Amino acid sequence: MQYTFSDNLGSLKPSAIREIFKSLTDPAIISFAAGNPAPQSFPAADLAEISADIFKNSAATALQYGITEGYTPLRQAVAARIKKKFNIGRDFDTTIITSGGTQGLELCCRAICNRGDVVIAEDPSFIGALNSFRAVGARTVGVPMEEDGISPDALEAALLAHPNTKLIYLIPTFQNPSGITTSWEKRQRIYEIARRHDVLILEDNPYGELRFAGEEIPTIKSIDEDGRVVYCSSFSKILSAGMRVGYVTAPDAIVQKMVVGKQCEDVHTNLFFQMLTYRYMTERDLDAHIREIQDIYRRKCSLMLAEMDRAFPKALRYTRPEGGLFIWCTLPAEIPMMDFVRRAVERKVAVVPGTAFNCDTEAPSPSFRLNYSTPSDDDIRRGIAILGELAADMLREAAR
Amino acid sequence: MQYTFSDNLGSLKPSAIREIFKSLTDPAIISFAAGNPAPQSFPAADLAEISADIFKNSAATALQYGITEGYTPLRQAVAARIKKKFNIGRDFDTTIITSGGTQGLELCCRAICNRGDVVIAEDPSFIGALNSFRAVGARTVGVPMEEDGISPDALEAALLAHPNTKLIYLIPTFQNPSGITTSWEKRQRIYEIARRHDVLILEDNPYGELRFAGEEIPTIKSIDEDGRVVYCSSFSKILSAGMRVGYVTAPDAIVQKMVVGKQCEDVHTNLFFQMLTYRYMTERDLDAHIREIQDIYRRKCSLMLAEMDRAFPKALRYTRPEGGLFIWCTLPAEIPMMDFVRRAVERKVAVVPGTAFNCDTEAPSPSFRLNYSTPSDDDIRRGIAILGELAADMLREAAR
Repeated sequence: MQYTFSDNLGSLKPSAIREIFKSLTDPAIISFAAGNPAPQSFPAADLAEISADIFKNSAATALQYGITEGYTPLRQAVAARIKKKFNIGRDFDTTIITSGGTQGLELCCRAICNRGDVVIAEDPSFIGALNSFRAVGARTVGVPMEEDGISPDALEAALLAHPNTKLIYLIPTFQNPSGITTSWEKRQRIYEIARRHDVLILEDNPYGELRFAGEEIPTIKSIDEDGRVVYCSSFSKILSAGMRVGYVTAPDAIVQKMVVGKQCEDVHTNLFFQMLTYRYMTERDLDAHIREIQDIYRRKCSLMLAEMDRAFPKALRYTRPEGGLFIWCTLPAEIPMMDFVRRAVERKVAVVPGTAFNCDTEAPSPSFRLNYSTPSDDDIRRGIAILGELAADMLREAAR
Repeated sequence: MQYTFSDNLGSLKPSAIREIFKSLTDPAIISFAAGNPAPQSFPAADLAEISADIFKNSAATALQYGITEGYTPLRQAVAARIKKKFNIGRDFDTTIITSGGTQGLELCCRAICNRGDVVIAEDPSFIGALNSFRAVGARTVGVPMEEDGISPDALEAALLAHPNTKLIYLIPTFQNPSGITTSWEKRQRIYEIARRHDVLILEDNPYGELRFAGEEIPTIKSIDEDGRVVYCSSFSKILSAGMRVGYVTAPDAIVQKMVVGKQCEDVHTNLFFQMLTYRYMTERDLDAHIREIQDIYRRKCSLMLAEMDRAFPKALRYTRPEGGLFIWCTLPAEIPMMDFVRRAVERKVAVVPGTAFNCDTEAPSPSFRLNYSTPSDDDIRRGIAILGELAADMLREAAR
């Protein structure tokens, strides 16, 4: 038979990154295209020990249905931890568990936006979130990313141009894909603008704990006196990405609607791994484990940047992140980005084309994203050298 | 600040059952309200063994991001199993893994329905699915359940009355909440009607393997030559409900849109438990395990029915299921259902009011749902006696 699809999902394309990820079956390819945490960042031995104990002593609970909001001890432990460490959560806030951070973003948009409503986002931004918004029928409008976050004035102009804006979606810390961290001053101004225009902020912070340089900057949620910020994060980058355990802290009225949505999606998040996460948090030293991950990424990021400094023609510009997983590279006008990405794959190096992260899916991009958490040191050295040679070749060709 | 919610989620109420489930913290309450599998139906010792091995030998994969469609070996094993056992799956079909069976239902509706489109369902039907459809903005229209499934003529009348019907949602085997199984003849006629009206069928079969009496009846999907049936099922009732591992077999074009939707919801299903499910399926005897569950439920259902036959006034009618988890009771006109449910809770027995399962949320119901898989034998005896006394009391009061 012939199929007709819904307007919301009918025109949506699968995430370009996940498609690239799927096609990367050639073991000879050096991939800088993933957004995967380093395998060493998963404390497998500790998780195995606790897991055995859950099977032994709590299997009947862990394998049974749970409640949609999440495993209560985990919710409490998460709320207590982010309150203590980051001053997140007021009396009006509630914390729930989601199936990864993305589900929190999607549920927030689903609870707030009707078809045609606008979500303003940093441009470029996390493709997964942008697609989640589009899948609800929301329109994504970008505000260009600057070195220290979006311009508050440009944000205000976008709000004035799009009065049906319902959400401002931001990854203020170690943004995906740019690696940029929004300055403290801009965070405060953005919050004030959101207040003035009475719009909600959706703050996505999956990388916040992965700082390996510079000074910590408070989250926007930590200054949220109005109940204007929906805060989403996850354990994907610090315990396990595959387990899909994330969380949301937001005003209770919004959370209640998100819970109704979550009930319709997956009823609840894998309960065994919620219990495992809770036990790990309370019986092991999560902060010490995170410091180990920071050490890994500090070293890997430094290595990649040092290789880039050495191998890349001066005409290529790139960010120098203080944490997170990504470096954002911008090609000079002489090198067409899509050609560069295609020829890189031919030379067995995969990067993500910047167009994948555009709020306007038709817009071009001179940039591409590099990931340093997944590749081995050797792959970083070889891969960056190949990209540097390719860029030099293409500059030479353009100069002819 | 004041919040405004989306039209789709704004008016939706949380599932009445899950709310009852949450409030059942009083340990003195005998609950017939859950839809939980018996704890013995989870092969915890086997899962623990395999789990330890995954942590030992495959942790880097199991804890890392996976692909949205699901763990490939599991997808293949599921497709092969349902092909062999139930003749499900043609060349045009694809099997993917979802986060429980509900996600498959929700994603199907999300891929197919726009706001205002109609989903025709058995009335009463599974509240979780109905809410998932409503959360996408679809309207649920009921066709009354009969002893052997909905009337094909009534279905056709509903299709004629609602030309914007996009899906016919059915639980043909051991339906929730009624416990009713649609006859083979009706299944064939329903498929023919769907073909004539060029509408898709969403076949939900979470209980199909839990038959403990009577003859197996082929699924509607098994006669699907057109690519007209989206088939959803899960491991919730046979391995673990808490792990949230389900699957969908449907025409590839539809599955591709559902995958885009799933990417937006949770990126992928908990990978560790997908691997665990795969290993269990291939290294242990799933069919033997299912036979054990059938034995448990045969015994529990017989016990509950025997107690009901003895304790319930003749004026109460109820279904005699051949499998699944539920018995559906209908009160005589003299006993108002909501009063009965409320007074049952006062006497420390919880059942689910039939109104929770109505396609028309405003309609009344004379019925309530009983679950026999979760309560102990002793609770079944005591709880049914209490319900019987209550019904007798209320009949006496009405006769005064």
